[in-house]
Amino acid sequence: MDHQTDPLALQAEALRRRAEGQRIGFVPTMGYLHQGHTSLMDIARSQCDWLVVSIFVNPLQFGPSEDLDRYPRDPEGDAAKCAGAGVDTLFMPQHFYPSDHSTSVAVAGLTDGFCGASRPNFFGGITTVVSRLFGIVQPSVAVFGEKDFQQLAVIRRMVRDLAMPIEVIGGPLIRDTDGLAMSSRNRYLTPERRQRALSLSGALKHMQALLSQRGAGTSAETLLAAGREILDFDEFDYLQIVDPDTLKDMPIIDRSARALVGGYIGGTRLIDNMALIP
Amino acid sequence: MDHQTDPLALQAEALRRRAEGQRIGFVPTMGYLHQGHTSLMDIARSQCDWLVVSIFVNPLQFGPSEDLDRYPRDPEGDAAKCAGAGVDTLFMPQHFYPSDHSTSVAVAGLTDGFCGASRPNFFGGITTVVSRLFGIVQPSVAVFGEKDFQQLAVIRRMVRDLAMPIEVIGGPLIRDTDGLAMSSRNRYLTPERRQRALSLSGALKHMQALLSQRGAGTSAETLLAAGREILDFDEFDYLQIVDPDTLKDMPIIDRSARALVGGYIGGTRLIDNMALIP
Repeated sequence: MDHQTDPLALQAEALRRRAEGQRIGFVPTMGYLHQGHTSLMDIARSQCDWLVVSIFVNPLQFGPSEDLDRYPRDPEGDAAKCAGAGVDTLFMPQHFYPSDHSTSVAVAGLTDGFCGASRPNFFGGITTVVSRLFGIVQPSVAVFGEKDFQQLAVIRRMVRDLAMPIEVIGGPLIRDTDGLAMSSRNRYLTPERRQRALSLSGALKHMQALLSQRGAGTSAETLLAAGREILDFDEFDYLQIVDPDTLKDMPIIDRSARALVGGYIGGTRLIDNMALIP
Repeated sequence: MDHQTDPLALQAEALRRRAEGQRIGFVPTMGYLHQGHTSLMDIARSQCDWLVVSIFVNPLQFGPSEDLDRYPRDPEGDAAKCAGAGVDTLFMPQHFYPSDHSTSVAVAGLTDGFCGASRPNFFGGITTVVSRLFGIVQPSVAVFGEKDFQQLAVIRRMVRDLAMPIEVIGGPLIRDTDGLAMSSRNRYLTPERRQRALSLSGALKHMQALLSQRGAGTSAETLLAAGREILDFDEFDYLQIVDPDTLKDMPIIDRSARALVGGYIGGTRLIDNMALIP
Protein backbone atom coordinates (compact mmCIF):
# COMPACT_ATOMS: atom_id res chain seq x y z
CA MET A 1 0.00 0.00 0.00
CA ASP A 2 1.26 3.46 -0.95
CA HIS A 3 1.09 6.42 1.39
CA GLN A 4 0.46 9.83 -0.10
CA THR A 5 0.31 13.20 1.65
CA ASP A 6 0.51 15.58 -1.32
CA PRO A 7 -2.83 16.41 -3.00
CA LEU A 8 -1.31 17.42 -6.33
CA ALA A 9 0.91 14.33 -6.56
CA LEU A 10 -2.11 12.13 -5.87
CA GLN A 11 -4.15 13.96 -8.50
CA ALA A 12 -1.38 13.55 -11.06
CA GLU A 13 -1.38 9.78 -10.51
CA ALA A 14 -5.19 9.69 -10.65
CA LEU A 15 -5.27 11.57 -13.97
CA ARG A 16 -2.63 9.27 -15.42
CA ARG A 17 -4.68 6.23 -14.42
CA ARG A 18 -7.92 7.73 -15.77
CA ALA A 19 -6.23 8.45 -19.10
CA GLU A 20 -5.29 4.74 -19.20
CA GLY A 21 -8.95 3.85 -18.75
CA GLN A 22 -8.60 2.67 -15.16
CA ARG A 23 -11.53 2.82 -12.78
CA ILE A 24 -10.74 4.59 -9.51
CA GLY A 25 -12.57 3.74 -6.28
CA PHE A 26 -12.65 6.06 -3.29
CA VAL A 27 -13.68 5.93 0.36
CA PRO A 28 -13.26 9.27 2.19
CA THR A 29 -12.99 8.99 5.99
CA MET A 30 -11.99 10.96 9.08
CA GLY A 31 -9.94 8.01 10.36
CA TYR A 32 -10.16 6.02 13.60
CA LEU A 33 -11.38 3.28 11.35
CA HIS A 34 -13.69 0.48 12.37
CA GLN A 35 -15.52 -2.34 10.65
CA GLY A 36 -18.08 0.14 9.30
CA HIS A 37 -15.31 1.78 7.29
CA THR A 38 -13.63 -1.41 6.14
CA SER A 39 -17.00 -2.69 4.89
CA LEU A 40 -17.12 0.37 2.60
CA MET A 41 -13.59 -0.41 1.39
CA ASP A 42 -14.69 -3.96 0.59
CA ILE A 43 -17.52 -2.63 -1.56
CA ALA A 44 -15.25 -0.15 -3.35
CA ARG A 45 -12.49 -2.78 -3.81
CA SER A 46 -14.82 -4.96 -5.88
CA GLN A 47 -15.68 -2.05 -8.20
CA CYS A 48 -12.35 -0.53 -9.17
CA ASP A 49 -8.79 -0.96 -10.43
CA TRP A 50 -7.24 1.48 -7.96
CA LEU A 51 -8.63 2.01 -4.46
CA VAL A 52 -7.89 5.24 -2.59
CA VAL A 53 -8.88 5.88 1.03
CA SER A 54 -8.47 9.34 2.51
CA ILE A 55 -8.13 10.17 6.19
CA PHE A 56 -8.68 13.83 6.90
CA VAL A 57 -10.39 15.35 9.92
CA ASN A 58 -12.01 18.27 8.11
CA PRO A 59 -12.12 21.41 10.25
CA LEU A 60 -14.81 23.00 8.04
CA GLN A 61 -17.49 20.58 9.24
CA PHE A 62 -16.97 21.13 12.96
CA GLY A 63 -18.67 23.89 14.92
CA PRO A 64 -16.68 26.04 17.37
CA SER A 65 -17.88 24.04 20.42
CA GLU A 66 -17.57 20.61 18.78
CA ASP A 67 -14.94 17.89 19.17
CA LEU A 68 -12.47 18.79 16.38
CA ASP A 69 -9.48 18.96 18.72
CA ARG A 70 -10.27 15.74 20.54
CA TYR A 71 -11.60 13.78 17.55
CA PRO A 72 -9.99 10.33 17.99
CA ARG A 73 -6.94 9.51 15.86
CA ASP A 74 -4.99 6.29 15.27
CA PRO A 75 -2.88 6.66 12.13
CA GLU A 76 -0.94 3.40 12.57
CA GLY A 77 -3.98 1.29 13.33
CA ASP A 78 -5.80 2.93 10.43
CA ALA A 79 -2.97 2.14 8.01
CA ALA A 80 -2.99 -1.51 9.07
CA LYS A 81 -6.76 -1.75 8.55
CA CYS A 82 -6.50 -0.13 5.11
CA ALA A 83 -3.70 -2.49 4.07
CA GLY A 84 -5.83 -5.41 5.27
CA ALA A 85 -8.75 -4.20 3.17
CA GLY A 86 -6.67 -4.14 -0.01
CA VAL A 87 -6.38 -0.36 -0.27
CA ASP A 88 -3.86 0.73 -2.92
CA THR A 89 -3.18 4.25 -1.72
CA LEU A 90 -3.82 5.84 1.65
CA PHE A 91 -4.14 9.61 1.35
CA MET A 92 -3.43 11.49 4.57
CA PRO A 93 -2.93 15.10 3.49
CA GLN A 94 -0.59 17.32 5.51
CA HIS A 95 -1.79 20.55 3.94
CA PHE A 96 -5.19 20.13 2.43
CA TYR A 97 -6.74 23.56 1.79
CA PRO A 98 -4.84 26.41 0.11
CA SER A 99 -4.10 29.12 2.69
CA ASP A 100 -6.57 31.53 1.05
CA HIS A 101 -9.16 28.87 0.20
CA SER A 102 -12.39 30.72 -0.49
CA THR A 103 -14.71 28.37 -2.42
CA SER A 104 -17.67 26.62 -0.86
CA VAL A 105 -20.19 24.09 -2.14
CA ALA A 106 -23.63 23.93 -0.56
CA VAL A 107 -26.78 21.86 -1.02
CA ALA A 108 -30.00 23.62 -0.05
CA GLY A 109 -33.13 21.95 1.29
CA LEU A 110 -31.86 18.46 2.08
CA THR A 111 -29.46 19.96 4.63
CA ASP A 112 -32.05 21.93 6.62
CA GLY A 113 -33.25 19.23 9.02
CA PHE A 114 -31.79 16.48 11.20
CA CYS A 115 -28.04 16.93 11.71
CA GLY A 116 -28.06 20.15 9.63
CA ALA A 117 -30.51 21.87 11.97
CA SER A 118 -28.32 21.49 15.05
CA ARG A 119 -24.96 21.73 13.24
CA PRO A 120 -25.16 24.79 10.95
CA ASN A 121 -21.65 24.47 9.43
CA PHE A 122 -21.80 20.72 9.09
CA PHE A 123 -23.07 19.91 5.60
CA GLY A 124 -21.50 22.95 3.96
CA GLY A 125 -18.20 21.70 5.34
CA ILE A 126 -18.86 18.19 4.05
CA THR A 127 -19.92 19.15 0.52
CA THR A 128 -16.92 21.48 0.26
CA VAL A 129 -14.36 18.94 1.46
CA VAL A 130 -15.85 16.12 -0.60
CA SER A 131 -15.82 18.29 -3.73
CA ARG A 132 -12.13 19.01 -3.25
CA LEU A 133 -11.39 15.35 -2.44
CA PHE A 134 -13.24 14.27 -5.58
CA GLY A 135 -11.17 16.76 -7.59
CA ILE A 136 -7.96 15.30 -6.20
CA VAL A 137 -8.84 11.58 -6.36
CA GLN A 138 -10.90 11.62 -9.61
CA PRO A 139 -12.99 8.61 -8.59
CA SER A 140 -15.34 6.70 -10.86
CA VAL A 141 -17.03 5.23 -7.79
CA ALA A 142 -17.21 6.55 -4.22
CA VAL A 143 -18.66 4.68 -1.26
CA PHE A 144 -20.32 6.38 1.72
CA GLY A 145 -21.95 4.69 4.69
CA GLU A 146 -25.69 4.62 5.24
CA LYS A 147 -24.85 5.30 8.88
CA ASP A 148 -24.69 8.97 7.85
CA PHE A 149 -27.93 8.69 5.94
CA GLN A 150 -28.52 12.41 5.45
CA GLN A 151 -24.90 12.90 4.34
CA LEU A 152 -25.34 10.17 1.72
CA ALA A 153 -28.47 11.88 0.35
CA VAL A 154 -26.70 15.24 0.28
CA ILE A 155 -23.66 13.81 -1.55
CA ARG A 156 -25.89 12.08 -4.11
CA ARG A 157 -27.66 15.38 -4.76
CA MET A 158 -24.41 17.31 -5.10
CA VAL A 159 -22.96 14.75 -7.49
CA ARG A 160 -26.08 14.83 -9.64
CA ASP A 161 -26.42 18.63 -9.65
CA LEU A 162 -22.77 19.32 -10.49
CA ALA A 163 -22.76 16.47 -13.03
CA MET A 164 -19.78 14.85 -11.34
CA PRO A 165 -19.12 11.61 -13.27
CA ILE A 166 -19.08 9.55 -10.10
CA GLU A 167 -21.18 6.57 -9.07
CA VAL A 168 -22.12 7.04 -5.41
CA ILE A 169 -22.76 3.80 -3.52
CA GLY A 170 -24.29 3.63 -0.06
CA GLY A 171 -22.81 0.92 2.17
CA PRO A 172 -25.04 -0.70 4.83
CA LEU A 173 -24.76 0.47 8.42
CA ILE A 174 -22.68 -1.93 10.51
CA ARG A 175 -23.65 -2.70 14.12
CA ASP A 176 -21.73 -4.12 17.02
CA THR A 177 -23.02 -7.44 18.37
CA ASP A 178 -25.08 -5.55 20.96
CA GLY A 179 -26.79 -3.54 18.19
CA LEU A 180 -24.95 -0.24 18.64
CA ALA A 181 -24.22 1.41 15.28
CA MET A 182 -20.44 1.51 14.83
CA SER A 183 -18.98 4.99 15.15
CA SER A 184 -15.57 6.46 15.90
CA ARG A 185 -17.28 8.47 18.62
CA ASN A 186 -18.39 5.33 20.52
CA ARG A 187 -15.00 5.37 22.24
CA TYR A 188 -16.19 8.42 24.20
CA LEU A 189 -18.88 6.27 25.90
CA THR A 190 -18.45 4.89 29.44
CA PRO A 191 -19.90 1.37 29.91
CA GLU A 192 -23.02 2.86 31.55
CA ARG A 193 -23.52 5.34 28.71
CA ARG A 194 -22.88 2.68 26.11
CA GLN A 195 -25.71 0.67 27.69
CA ARG A 196 -27.99 3.70 27.39
CA ALA A 197 -26.82 4.24 23.79
CA LEU A 198 -28.45 0.90 22.90
CA SER A 199 -31.75 2.76 23.23
CA LEU A 200 -31.19 4.24 19.74
CA SER A 201 -31.18 0.91 17.91
CA GLY A 202 -33.72 -0.41 20.45
CA ALA A 203 -36.17 2.36 19.58
CA LEU A 204 -35.73 1.86 15.84
CA LYS A 205 -36.19 -1.93 16.08
CA HIS A 206 -39.28 -1.45 18.20
CA MET A 207 -40.73 0.94 15.63
CA GLN A 208 -40.18 -1.64 12.88
CA ALA A 209 -41.76 -4.35 15.03
CA LEU A 210 -44.79 -2.15 15.69
CA LEU A 211 -45.07 -1.31 11.98
CA SER A 212 -44.90 -5.01 11.06
CA GLN A 213 -47.72 -5.65 13.51
CA ARG A 214 -49.95 -2.70 12.44
CA GLY A 215 -49.09 -2.90 8.70
CA ALA A 216 -49.11 -0.36 5.87
CA GLY A 217 -51.04 2.81 6.66
CA THR A 218 -49.79 3.13 10.23
CA SER A 219 -49.29 6.77 11.17
CA ALA A 220 -45.77 8.03 11.74
CA GLU A 221 -46.93 9.62 14.98
CA THR A 222 -47.87 6.21 16.44
CA LEU A 223 -44.41 4.85 15.67
CA LEU A 224 -42.56 8.00 16.77
CA ALA A 225 -44.37 8.10 20.12
CA ALA A 226 -43.38 4.47 20.75
CA GLY A 227 -39.78 5.19 19.75
CA ARG A 228 -39.47 8.32 21.89
CA GLU A 229 -40.52 6.31 24.97
CA ILE A 230 -37.50 4.08 24.55
CA LEU A 231 -34.83 6.69 23.72
CA ASP A 232 -32.59 7.51 26.69
CA PHE A 233 -30.89 10.72 25.50
CA ASP A 234 -29.55 13.43 27.77
CA GLU A 235 -30.29 15.83 24.95
CA PHE A 236 -32.81 14.75 22.33
CA ASP A 237 -32.18 16.13 18.82
CA TYR A 238 -34.55 14.40 16.38
CA LEU A 239 -36.51 11.24 15.66
CA GLN A 240 -38.25 11.34 12.27
CA ILE A 241 -39.62 9.03 9.61
CA VAL A 242 -38.84 10.22 6.10
CA ASP A 243 -38.84 9.38 2.42
CA PRO A 244 -35.41 7.81 1.79
CA ASP A 245 -34.63 10.03 -1.23
CA THR A 246 -36.12 13.43 -0.43
CA LEU A 247 -35.80 13.13 3.38
CA LYS A 248 -39.28 14.67 3.64
CA ASP A 249 -41.47 13.58 6.55
CA MET A 250 -43.90 10.75 5.80
CA PRO A 251 -47.04 11.15 7.94
CA ILE A 252 -48.45 7.75 6.89
CA ILE A 253 -46.18 4.75 6.36
CA ASP A 254 -47.65 3.18 3.22
CA ARG A 255 -44.32 2.24 1.62
CA SER A 256 -40.66 1.82 2.59
CA ALA A 257 -39.44 4.68 4.75
CA ARG A 258 -36.40 5.52 6.83
CA ALA A 259 -36.36 6.34 10.53
CA LEU A 260 -33.56 8.71 11.58
CA VAL A 261 -32.55 9.48 15.14
CA GLY A 262 -29.94 11.76 16.70
CA GLY A 263 -29.04 13.22 20.08
CA TYR A 264 -26.50 13.30 22.90
CA ILE A 265 -25.64 10.93 25.74
CA GLY A 266 -23.14 12.35 28.19
CA GLY A 267 -21.95 14.95 25.67
CA THR A 268 -21.36 12.39 22.91
CA ARG A 269 -23.31 12.90 19.71
CA LEU A 270 -24.93 9.66 18.50
CA ILE A 271 -26.98 8.99 15.38
CA ASP A 272 -28.63 5.89 13.95
CA ASN A 273 -31.15 5.00 11.25
CA MET A 274 -33.08 2.03 9.98
CA ALA A 275 -35.35 1.13 7.07
CA LEU A 276 -39.01 0.90 8.06
CA ILE A 277 -40.84 -1.58 5.83
CA PRO A 278 -44.60 -2.07 6.26
CA MET B 1 -19.47 19.84 -36.33
CA ASP B 2 -21.75 17.86 -34.03
CA HIS B 3 -24.72 19.37 -32.23
CA GLN B 4 -25.56 18.10 -28.79
CA THR B 5 -28.44 19.10 -26.52
CA ASP B 6 -28.33 16.29 -23.94
CA PRO B 7 -25.95 16.86 -20.99
CA LEU B 8 -25.62 13.17 -20.12
CA ALA B 9 -24.94 12.10 -23.71
CA LEU B 10 -22.26 14.77 -23.99
CA GLN B 11 -20.71 13.65 -20.70
CA ALA B 12 -20.66 10.03 -21.84
CA GLU B 13 -18.73 11.01 -24.97
CA ALA B 14 -16.36 13.19 -22.91
CA LEU B 15 -15.62 10.34 -20.49
CA ARG B 16 -14.99 7.95 -23.34
CA ARG B 17 -12.53 10.38 -24.90
CA ARG B 18 -10.80 11.05 -21.56
CA ALA B 19 -10.38 7.31 -21.03
CA GLU B 20 -8.67 7.20 -24.43
CA GLY B 21 -6.23 9.85 -23.28
CA GLN B 22 -7.70 12.66 -25.37
CA ARG B 23 -7.39 16.27 -24.28
CA ILE B 24 -10.71 18.13 -24.22
CA GLY B 25 -10.91 21.89 -24.76
CA PHE B 26 -13.90 23.97 -23.70
CA VAL B 27 -15.23 27.48 -24.24
CA PRO B 28 -18.46 28.20 -22.35
CA THR B 29 -20.55 31.07 -23.75
CA MET B 30 -23.99 32.63 -23.60
CA GLY B 31 -24.15 32.83 -27.39
CA TYR B 32 -24.62 35.80 -29.74
CA LEU B 33 -21.04 35.14 -30.61
CA HIS B 34 -18.59 37.73 -31.85
CA GLN B 35 -14.88 37.86 -32.60
CA GLY B 36 -14.13 37.99 -28.88
CA HIS B 37 -15.63 34.50 -28.52
CA THR B 38 -14.05 33.04 -31.66
CA SER B 39 -10.64 34.27 -30.48
CA LEU B 40 -11.13 32.10 -27.37
CA MET B 41 -12.06 29.14 -29.57
CA ASP B 42 -8.86 29.67 -31.58
CA ILE B 43 -6.82 29.47 -28.38
CA ALA B 44 -8.64 26.34 -27.18
CA ARG B 45 -8.43 24.71 -30.64
CA SER B 46 -4.64 24.78 -30.52
CA GLN B 47 -4.59 23.05 -27.11
CA CYS B 48 -6.90 20.07 -27.48
CA ASP B 49 -8.04 17.01 -29.41
CA TRP B 50 -11.75 17.69 -29.02
CA LEU B 51 -13.18 21.21 -28.78
CA VAL B 52 -16.56 21.78 -27.17
CA VAL B 53 -18.35 25.15 -27.10
CA SER B 54 -21.48 25.58 -25.00
CA ILE B 55 -24.20 28.15 -25.53
CA PHE B 56 -26.44 28.52 -22.52
CA VAL B 57 -28.03 31.70 -21.22
CA ASN B 58 -27.81 30.84 -17.55
CA PRO B 59 -30.80 32.16 -15.59
CA LEU B 60 -28.95 31.80 -12.25
CA GLN B 61 -26.62 34.69 -13.01
CA PHE B 62 -29.29 37.24 -13.89
CA GLY B 63 -31.03 39.40 -11.29
CA PRO B 64 -34.82 39.85 -11.36
CA SER B 65 -34.59 43.24 -13.12
CA GLU B 66 -31.84 42.26 -15.55
CA ASP B 67 -31.97 41.36 -19.24
CA LEU B 68 -32.41 37.56 -19.12
CA ASP B 69 -35.55 37.60 -21.29
CA ARG B 70 -34.19 39.96 -23.89
CA TYR B 71 -30.60 38.67 -23.91
CA PRO B 72 -29.73 38.55 -27.63
CA ARG B 73 -29.84 35.16 -29.37
CA ASP B 74 -28.74 33.97 -32.81
CA PRO B 75 -28.45 30.17 -32.82
CA GLU B 76 -27.89 29.83 -36.57
CA GLY B 77 -25.26 32.55 -36.79
CA ASP B 78 -23.59 31.12 -33.70
CA ALA B 79 -23.44 27.63 -35.20
CA ALA B 80 -21.83 29.01 -38.38
CA LYS B 81 -19.21 30.88 -36.35
CA CYS B 82 -18.41 27.78 -34.28
CA ALA B 83 -18.07 25.63 -37.39
CA GLY B 84 -15.76 28.25 -38.86
CA ALA B 85 -13.62 28.19 -35.72
CA GLY B 86 -13.11 24.42 -35.94
CA VAL B 87 -15.38 23.52 -33.04
CA ASP B 88 -16.04 19.75 -32.84
CA THR B 89 -19.21 19.78 -30.75
CA LEU B 90 -21.63 22.61 -30.08
CA PHE B 91 -23.53 22.02 -26.84
CA MET B 92 -26.84 23.87 -26.62
CA PRO B 93 -28.68 22.20 -23.74
CA GLN B 94 -32.49 22.10 -23.84
CA HIS B 95 -32.85 21.12 -20.21
CA PHE B 96 -29.79 22.03 -18.25
CA TYR B 97 -30.58 21.95 -14.53
CA PRO B 98 -32.46 19.09 -12.84
CA SER B 99 -35.93 20.31 -11.82
CA ASP B 100 -35.02 20.15 -8.12
CA HIS B 101 -31.46 21.40 -8.56
CA SER B 102 -30.29 22.53 -5.14
CA THR B 103 -26.47 22.73 -5.19
CA SER B 104 -24.55 25.99 -5.37
CA VAL B 105 -20.87 26.82 -5.63
CA ALA B 106 -19.62 30.16 -4.30
CA VAL B 107 -16.30 31.98 -4.08
CA ALA B 108 -16.01 34.43 -1.19
CA GLY B 109 -13.92 37.60 -1.16
CA LEU B 110 -13.02 37.96 -4.84
CA THR B 111 -16.72 38.32 -5.68
CA ASP B 112 -17.48 41.15 -3.25
CA GLY B 113 -16.51 44.15 -5.38
CA PHE B 114 -16.92 45.38 -8.95
CA CYS B 115 -19.65 43.46 -10.79
CA GLY B 116 -20.39 41.38 -7.67
CA ALA B 117 -21.29 44.46 -5.60
CA SER B 118 -24.04 45.64 -7.95
CA ARG B 119 -25.16 42.15 -9.10
CA PRO B 120 -25.58 40.01 -5.95
CA ASN B 121 -26.61 36.77 -7.72
CA PHE B 122 -24.10 37.14 -10.49
CA PHE B 123 -20.96 35.26 -9.48
CA GLY B 124 -22.77 32.58 -7.49
CA GLY B 125 -24.72 31.88 -10.67
CA ILE B 126 -21.53 31.76 -12.72
CA THR B 127 -19.55 29.47 -10.42
CA THR B 128 -22.53 27.14 -10.14
CA VAL B 129 -23.19 26.91 -13.89
CA VAL B 130 -19.49 26.58 -14.73
CA SER B 131 -19.08 23.78 -12.18
CA ARG B 132 -21.93 21.86 -13.77
CA LEU B 133 -20.63 22.56 -17.29
CA PHE B 134 -17.17 21.35 -16.26
CA GLY B 135 -18.76 18.17 -14.88
CA ILE B 136 -20.53 17.55 -18.17
CA VAL B 137 -17.72 18.47 -20.59
CA GLN B 138 -14.74 17.14 -18.53
CA PRO B 139 -12.30 19.63 -20.04
CA SER B 140 -8.53 19.52 -19.64
CA VAL B 141 -8.36 23.15 -20.72
CA ALA B 142 -10.99 25.89 -20.56
CA VAL B 143 -10.67 29.36 -22.05
CA PHE B 144 -12.36 32.47 -20.62
CA GLY B 145 -12.03 36.04 -21.89
CA GLU B 146 -10.12 38.72 -20.02
CA LYS B 147 -13.01 40.99 -20.95
CA ASP B 148 -14.72 39.55 -17.86
CA PHE B 149 -11.63 40.02 -15.77
CA GLN B 150 -13.22 39.47 -12.39
CA GLN B 151 -15.00 36.34 -13.66
CA LEU B 152 -11.68 34.93 -14.87
CA ALA B 153 -10.10 35.49 -11.42
CA VAL B 154 -13.12 33.89 -9.72
CA ILE B 155 -13.04 30.83 -12.01
CA ARG B 156 -9.30 30.39 -11.46
CA ARG B 157 -9.86 30.48 -7.70
CA MET B 158 -12.73 27.98 -7.85
CA VAL B 159 -10.74 25.57 -10.02
CA ARG B 160 -7.77 25.74 -7.66
CA ASP B 161 -9.84 25.41 -4.46
CA LEU B 162 -11.94 22.47 -5.70
CA ALA B 163 -8.83 20.86 -7.25
CA MET B 164 -10.53 20.64 -10.63
CA PRO B 165 -7.92 19.18 -13.01
CA ILE B 166 -8.45 21.95 -15.54
CA GLU B 167 -6.02 24.45 -17.02
CA VAL B 168 -7.78 27.83 -17.15
CA ILE B 169 -6.50 30.16 -19.88
CA GLY B 170 -7.43 33.83 -20.13
CA GLY B 171 -7.90 35.10 -23.69
CA PRO B 172 -7.10 38.76 -24.47
CA LEU B 173 -9.95 41.26 -24.69
CA ILE B 174 -10.87 42.00 -28.31
CA ARG B 175 -11.84 45.53 -29.36
CA ASP B 176 -13.72 46.86 -32.35
CA THR B 177 -11.74 49.19 -34.63
CA ASP B 178 -13.09 52.18 -32.70
CA GLY B 179 -11.76 50.74 -29.43
CA LEU B 180 -15.05 49.51 -27.94
CA ALA B 181 -14.60 46.20 -26.12
CA MET B 182 -16.61 43.56 -28.00
CA SER B 183 -19.73 42.43 -26.14
CA SER B 184 -23.01 40.78 -27.06
CA ARG B 185 -24.71 43.66 -25.28
CA ASN B 186 -23.23 46.27 -27.68
CA ARG B 187 -26.18 45.60 -30.00
CA TYR B 188 -28.38 47.41 -27.46
CA LEU B 189 -26.48 50.67 -28.13
CA THR B 190 -27.86 53.38 -30.43
CA PRO B 191 -25.18 55.13 -32.55
CA GLU B 192 -25.16 58.08 -30.11
CA ARG B 193 -24.78 55.79 -27.08
CA ARG B 194 -22.12 53.74 -28.82
CA GLN B 195 -20.16 56.96 -29.29
CA ARG B 196 -20.46 57.67 -25.55
CA ALA B 197 -19.47 54.04 -24.80
CA LEU B 198 -16.05 54.80 -26.30
CA SER B 199 -15.42 56.78 -23.11
CA LEU B 200 -14.69 53.50 -21.29
CA SER B 201 -11.70 52.53 -23.42
CA GLY B 202 -10.85 56.22 -23.77
CA ALA B 203 -10.60 56.62 -19.99
CA LEU B 204 -8.48 53.48 -19.62
CA LYS B 205 -6.09 54.50 -22.42
CA HIS B 206 -5.77 57.95 -20.94
CA MET B 207 -4.92 56.45 -17.53
CA GLN B 208 -2.18 54.33 -19.12
CA ALA B 209 -0.82 57.38 -20.99
CA LEU B 210 -0.75 59.39 -17.77
CA LEU B 211 0.96 56.53 -15.93
CA SER B 212 3.59 56.24 -18.70
CA GLN B 213 4.25 59.96 -18.31
CA ARG B 214 4.37 60.03 -14.49
CA GLY B 215 6.06 56.62 -14.07
CA ALA B 216 6.13 54.03 -11.30
CA GLY B 217 4.93 55.34 -7.94
CA THR B 218 2.03 57.36 -9.35
CA SER B 219 -0.94 57.25 -7.01
CA ALA B 220 -4.06 55.40 -8.10
CA GLU B 221 -6.13 58.43 -7.12
CA THR B 222 -4.35 60.62 -9.68
CA LEU B 223 -5.12 58.13 -12.45
CA LEU B 224 -8.67 57.44 -11.28
CA ALA B 225 -9.56 61.15 -11.13
CA ALA B 226 -8.32 61.57 -14.70
CA GLY B 227 -10.27 58.51 -15.83
CA ARG B 228 -13.51 59.57 -14.13
CA GLU B 229 -13.40 62.92 -15.98
CA ILE B 230 -13.60 61.08 -19.29
CA LEU B 231 -16.25 58.46 -18.46
CA ASP B 232 -19.68 59.34 -19.85
CA PHE B 233 -21.92 56.91 -17.93
CA ASP B 234 -25.59 57.52 -17.15
CA GLU B 235 -25.01 55.39 -14.06
CA PHE B 236 -21.45 54.99 -12.81
CA ASP B 237 -20.70 51.65 -11.10
CA TYR B 238 -16.95 51.41 -10.50
CA LEU B 239 -13.51 52.46 -11.71
CA GLN B 240 -10.68 50.82 -9.76
CA ILE B 241 -7.05 49.90 -10.09
CA VAL B 242 -6.27 46.48 -8.63
CA ASP B 243 -3.74 43.71 -8.27
CA PRO B 244 -4.45 41.39 -11.24
CA ASP B 245 -4.55 38.22 -9.08
CA THR B 246 -6.13 39.25 -5.78
CA LEU B 247 -8.26 42.10 -7.24
CA LYS B 248 -7.30 44.18 -4.21
CA ASP B 249 -6.99 47.94 -4.65
CA MET B 250 -3.47 49.21 -5.34
CA PRO B 251 -3.08 52.74 -3.90
CA ILE B 252 0.35 53.26 -5.52
CA ILE B 253 1.12 51.89 -8.99
CA ASP B 254 4.64 50.54 -8.56
CA ARG B 255 4.16 47.41 -10.69
CA SER B 256 1.74 46.03 -13.29
CA ALA B 257 -1.88 46.59 -12.30
CA ARG B 258 -5.29 46.27 -13.87
CA ALA B 259 -7.84 49.04 -14.26
CA LEU B 260 -11.47 47.85 -14.21
CA VAL B 261 -14.48 49.94 -15.15
CA GLY B 262 -18.24 49.26 -15.20
CA GLY B 263 -21.49 51.19 -15.47
CA TYR B 264 -24.57 51.85 -17.57
CA ILE B 265 -25.23 53.90 -20.69
CA GLY B 266 -28.91 54.14 -21.63
CA GLY B 267 -29.75 51.08 -19.54
CA THR B 268 -27.03 48.90 -21.11
CA ARG B 269 -24.43 47.50 -18.76
CA LEU B 270 -20.89 47.97 -20.09
CA ILE B 271 -17.56 46.84 -18.64
CA ASP B 272 -13.97 47.15 -19.79
CA ASN B 273 -10.48 46.68 -18.37
CA MET B 274 -6.88 47.25 -19.32
CA ALA B 275 -3.41 46.46 -17.99
CA LEU B 276 -1.70 49.47 -16.43
CA ILE B 277 2.06 49.17 -16.77
CA PRO B 278 4.32 51.85 -15.21
